[in-house]
Amino acid sequence: MTRVDFRTDPSRYRHWRLKAEGPVATLTMDVDESGGLVPGYELKLNSYDLGVDIELYDAVQRLRFEHPEVRAVVVTSGKEKVFCAGANIRMLASSEHGWKVNFCKFTNETRNGIEDATENSGQTYLAALNGTASGGGYELALACDQILLVDDRSSAVSLPELPLLGVLPGTGGLTRVVDKRHVRRDRADYFSTKAEGLGGKKAVAWKLVDEAVPRVRWTEAVSERSLALASASTRLPGGAAIELTALDKSRTDDAITYQHVAAALDRARSVAEITVRAPEQEAPPSMAAARAAGAAFWPLAVARELDDLILDLRTNETELGTWVFRTQGDPAKVLAYDELLLNSKDNWFANEVLHYLKRTLRRLDVTSRSLIAVIEPGSCFAGSMLELALAADRSFQLAGVFEDKNPDAEPATITLGDMNLGPLTMSNGLTRLQTRFWGDEAGYEAAAKRKNEALEAEDAADLGLITFAPDDIDWDEEIRIATEERASFSPDALTGLEANYRFAGPETMETKIFGRLTAWQNWIFNRPNASGPDGALRRFGTGQRAVFDRKRV
Amino acid sequence: MTRVDFRTDPSRYRHWRLKAEGPVATLTMDVDESGGLVPGYELKLNSYDLGVDIELYDAVQRLRFEHPEVRAVVVTSGKEKVFCAGANIRMLASSEHGWKVNFCKFTNETRNGIEDATENSGQTYLAALNGTASGGGYELALACDQILLVDDRSSAVSLPELPLLGVLPGTGGLTRVVDKRHVRRDRADYFSTKAEGLGGKKAVAWKLVDEAVPRVRWTEAVSERSLALASASTRLPGGAAIELTALDKSRTDDAITYQHVAAALDRARSVAEITVRAPEQEAPPSMAAARAAGAAFWPLAVARELDDLILDLRTNETELGTWVFRTQGDPAKVLAYDELLLNSKDNWFANEVLHYLKRTLRRLDVTSRSLIAVIEPGSCFAGSMLELALAADRSFQLAGVFEDKNPDAEPATITLGDMNLGPLTMSNGLTRLQTRFWGDEAGYEAAAKRKNEALEAEDAADLGLITFAPDDIDWDEEIRIATEERASFSPDALTGLEANYRFAGPETMETKIFGRLTAWQNWIFNRPNASGPDGALRRFGTGQRAVFDRKRV
Repeated sequence: MTRVDFRTDPSRYRHWRLKAEGPVATLTMDVDESGGLVPGYELKLNSYDLGVDIELYDAVQRLRFEHPEVRAVVVTSGKEKVFCAGANIRMLASSEHGWKVNFCKFTNETRNGIEDATENSGQTYLAALNGTASGGGYELALACDQILLVDDRSSAVSLPELPLLGVLPGTGGLTRVVDKRHVRRDRADYFSTKAEGLGGKKAVAWKLVDEAVPRVRWTEAVSERSLALASASTRLPGGAAIELTALDKSRTDDAITYQHVAAALDRARSVAEITVRAPEQEAPPSMAAARAAGAAFWPLAVARELDDLILDLRTNETELGTWVFRTQGDPAKVLAYDELLLNSKDNWFANEVLHYLKRTLRRLDVTSRSLIAVIEPGSCFAGSMLELALAADRSFQLAGVFEDKNPDAEPATITLGDMNLGPLTMSNGLTRLQTRFWGDEAGYEAAAKRKNEALEAEDAADLGLITFAPDDIDWDEEIRIATEERASFSPDALTGLEANYRFAGPETMETKIFGRLTAWQNWIFNRPNASGPDGALRRFGTGQRAVFDRKRV
Repeated sequence: MTRVDFRTDPSRYRHWRLKAEGPVATLTMDVDESGGLVPGYELKLNSYDLGVDIELYDAVQRLRFEHPEVRAVVVTSGKEKVFCAGANIRMLASSEHGWKVNFCKFTNETRNGIEDATENSGQTYLAALNGTASGGGYELALACDQILLVDDRSSAVSLPELPLLGVLPGTGGLTRVVDKRHVRRDRADYFSTKAEGLGGKKAVAWKLVDEAVPRVRWTEAVSERSLALASASTRLPGGAAIELTALDKSRTDDAITYQHVAAALDRARSVAEITVRAPEQEAPPSMAAARAAGAAFWPLAVARELDDLILDLRTNETELGTWVFRTQGDPAKVLAYDELLLNSKDNWFANEVLHYLKRTLRRLDVTSRSLIAVIEPGSCFAGSMLELALAADRSFQLAGVFEDKNPDAEPATITLGDMNLGPLTMSNGLTRLQTRFWGDEAGYEAAAKRKNEALEAEDAADLGLITFAPDDIDWDEEIRIATEERASFSPDALTGLEANYRFAGPETMETKIFGRLTAWQNWIFNRPNASGPDGALRRFGTGQRAVFDRKRV
C-alpha cells in the first residue's frame, strides 16, 4: 500500500470547502464519493475516511494561523438532507485492525483540536446540521460548542454504531454525550440503541442538540448564532495571517528529513531514531520580529515538522515499535525562544504557537510506540525540548562524556524552564512534570527549584528528572539492551502498559476518550462479533444479519 | 462444566488460614497445589485460580463481620521463599476469554474490598512478603496499606506479565503502582519490563515496598508493624461477632432462590428476572435489636443474597445478557430500615452493613449485563432499593395501574431517601443520583427536594428519576421490545457501551482499574500475540518463544 501523506492545503481539498467571511468561517463538508484514500469503497452520504479527515485537520489548523480574523466557525454540509453519515462502513469493514485504531486516534485528535480552538483560541465552533448527522457525523457535531439541527421531521442525530454495526462510536461520542452535554445516562443508553436517532424538540429536550430550527429560518438562525459566538469570542487581536507554507520534507524508505527534525528508520532494529535540532539563529527580539519569520519561526516550524513526522510514522511505519529521541544544538537558544513565547502570552501568534506545541506533544503521549529519550553531549533538552524526554517512557543521560570520541566535550545537561512548569499540559490537565511527580509534591518542588540550571546526569537522576545515568563504559550496552528488549516484547502489551503509565493522576474527557473509550472500542473491533466473517461490521449492508456469540464477557 | 459456587467458610478453606489473635488477624496463603477449581493445572508456588480467590473474598468479608476486635490484618504466605506467584498461568492459558475476564473482575473486587476494609472499617491490611511476590501476588500486596518485604538477596516484587506472558497485570497493578504508591512512571515502566523484579533497598527507594526487613528481624518487624497499625486504627467498638451463617439458597437450572431475593432464568429470552423483596417485619427499634437478628437482619441478608446472586449469574450464566430487576413489598419498611442504619453511622454493625451494601451495588455497576428496572404496583423502589433502579441502564415505571389485573391497586411509586443522597457511592466517588445528574445541578436539587415523597410515574419521569413511564396499554409491549432488542445486539458492544455510560463524571483509582486498565487487558487477552497458538500466554512454559506480529496498533 502507498504511504499516506498528511500534507495538504485548501487548493487541494476534494471533500471540504473553507470560506472565511469576516469573523465567521464556514467549513462545508461535501465529500467526493469517488475520492476515497484507498480503493474499494465509495464515500456516499458524506461519509468519511482518513483522507477526508486529513483535510479537516488541515483546515482546523489553518483557521488558527491563517485566519486571525475568524472568531467563529460553522461546520455544515454541502449535501441535501444529510450532514454526515460518519466513518465509511465499507472502509472500516475492509480495514485491518491496526488501520481502524490509528484512523480513530487521528480523528479523535482532530475533534479534540476543534475543542482546543474553541477553548484556547477564541474560535468557537458551531455545528449547523442541515440534515441527519449519524455516528461519526454526530460525533463531529459533539466536538463543536453548539449544535443546531434543522427541524424538518426527518433530520436527526444518531449513534447507530451499536445497533447497526456491533461496535461503539469511536470518536468520543459516548464520553461527550454524558460528560460534555450532560445527557442523562439512561437516555444516552436509549439514544445509542436507537439506530434512527432523535430529532426535533425531543433532541433538544434530551440535550442532544441545542436548538431545532425550521428550514425556513435555517439560514438566518445559523447566521445569527455564529455572529453571536463571534462577538462573544475572546480571540486575541491577530493582525496579518501566518501562512502555513509547504513543509520542506524529504521521504525515502529509510529516512524522513525536515529542516529541524530528522528520522532514520532502522527496520532491522524496529527503531526510528529521531533527532530534533535547536534553532540556529538567536531568538527574535519580539513577537513582531517572530511574525516576520512566519512559518519559519523555529517553534512553529519544529511543531509542524514533529506533528507531520508523528503522523507519518504512526500510519506508515507500524513495525517501528520504538522511537528514540535525541536533540542537537544550543539549549540557551531553545530557552530564549521559549522565553519569548512565554513573555508574550497575550500575543495572538505566541498563543497559537504555544497551543500547537501543546497539541503536538499530546499526540506523542497517545502514540502507541515506546518512547526513549537519549541525552548526550551536544544535546538541547531544555524547556520545550525537555518535554520530549519527559514524554518518554524512559530516558538515559550520559554521565560525563564519551572519553574516546570527544573527551573535551561539555557533559550532557538538561534544563528545566518555565515551559515545563505550566503551558504544555498533557490531556490529563497536568504538565508532564506534575504527572511525573504525581503524589510527590516535595520531589516536584525540589526539581522546580532548579529551574534554568543546566543539570548533569547525576543531578538530574537524583532529582528524578531522568531514568538512568550510565557512564561512557555502560552507555552503548544499556541503550542497546533497552531497544532490543523493547523490540522483543509483545507490541500489544507494550501499548497497554504505556497507555496506563503515561497518564497517572486525574482524568479528563480527553483521557477518558483515549484511555477508557478507545480501549473498549479496540477490544470490540477485535472480537468476532464485530469483525469475524459473521460479525456485524462485516455483514452490514449485505442483507444478512450478524450472528453473535451471545456470551457476555 | 459444573457451576461455580461462591459460598464457603473457614472450615472448608483449602488454600488459606485465618487466625485472629486479639487486634491482629493473620491471613496465610498456603495454596493446595492439587486444589484447582477446574482440572488441568497445578497451583504451584502459591499461584491462584478463582477457587483460591473465592476463599480470600470470604475471609475478607468475615473479618469485617465476625471479627469486630480485629483492627489490622497481616497477609502472608505459608510457603518457604515465596509469597505468591500470582494467577496460575496454565489456568489462564487454557481458559476461554470470558472466563479470564470474569476472573479478573472478581479478583479486582476482592482487592478493592481489602482497600475498603482499610479505609472504612478500620481493618488495616499489611502485606508481609516473606518471599517473592510476582504478578498477581504483588498486586495483592499493592491492595494492602503497607508492604514489608523480606530482605534476603533473593526475594523480590515483580510484575512479569509483560515480559513473560505478553499481557498486562490484571488486578490493578499498573494503576496502583503509579496512582497509589506514586512510583515514578519511568521507573514503573522499567520495573514492569524486568521479569525478575526488584528487591531490597532498591525496591524501597523506588517506593515499590515500604520496608525491606532482614530475615532475622522478620517476625518481630511484622508483629511490631501490625500492632502499630492496629493501635492507630479507627475501627468502631464492636462487641460480639455477627456470624455470617450459611445462605439459604436453592439453585436449579431455571431458578435461584434465597429468602429475600429470587431470580428466574429465562434462557429463551436471555433474561434473568430478579425480584428483591422488602422486609416483612418492621425495622427493629435499635441497632442492638438489629444485632440480635444477626445475619438475618434484612439489609445484611439482602446484601449477601444479592452479592451471591450477582456472582453466580456472572460466572455461570453468561448467556443471560439482560437482568430485569423488580422489587416487592412495603416501601415504608425499606425506608425504616434505611433510617435505622443512617441514624447509627457510628455503630460498628450499621457501618459494616452500609459498606457491604455499597460494595454489592458497586459490583452491579461493573457487571457486564444490561440492567433494566421495572417498577410496578406493589414494588418498593425506595431508598436503598431505589439504588437498583438508579444502577440500571434504563427503568420503566407504570403510569397508573394494570386496569385488567388489579384496577384497585395503588399506583407504582418510587421514593428517594437519605440512602440515595450520600452513603452508597459508586466507584467514581459519586452517588448514583449525582452521576445521573452529572452537570445538571438544578436537576439534582429538584429531585433531592422531593425526598421521602412517594412519586408516581409522571412525577418521577418529570424529575428525571426514571427513563420511561408507559401506561397499562403500552406496558407489556415496551418491556418486551426493550428486552428483545437488547438480546439482539452485539453483547460485546453492549458491554463497552454500558462500561462507558455508567461512569459519567470523575474518575478514581477504582474506575481506572475497571475502565481503562480492564479494557486494555481485555483487548490484549483477545489478541493473537497473547492468546493465539503462537502467543506469549500459550507458549509460556513450553520452552518455545512467542511469535509476535510486530505491528503496533
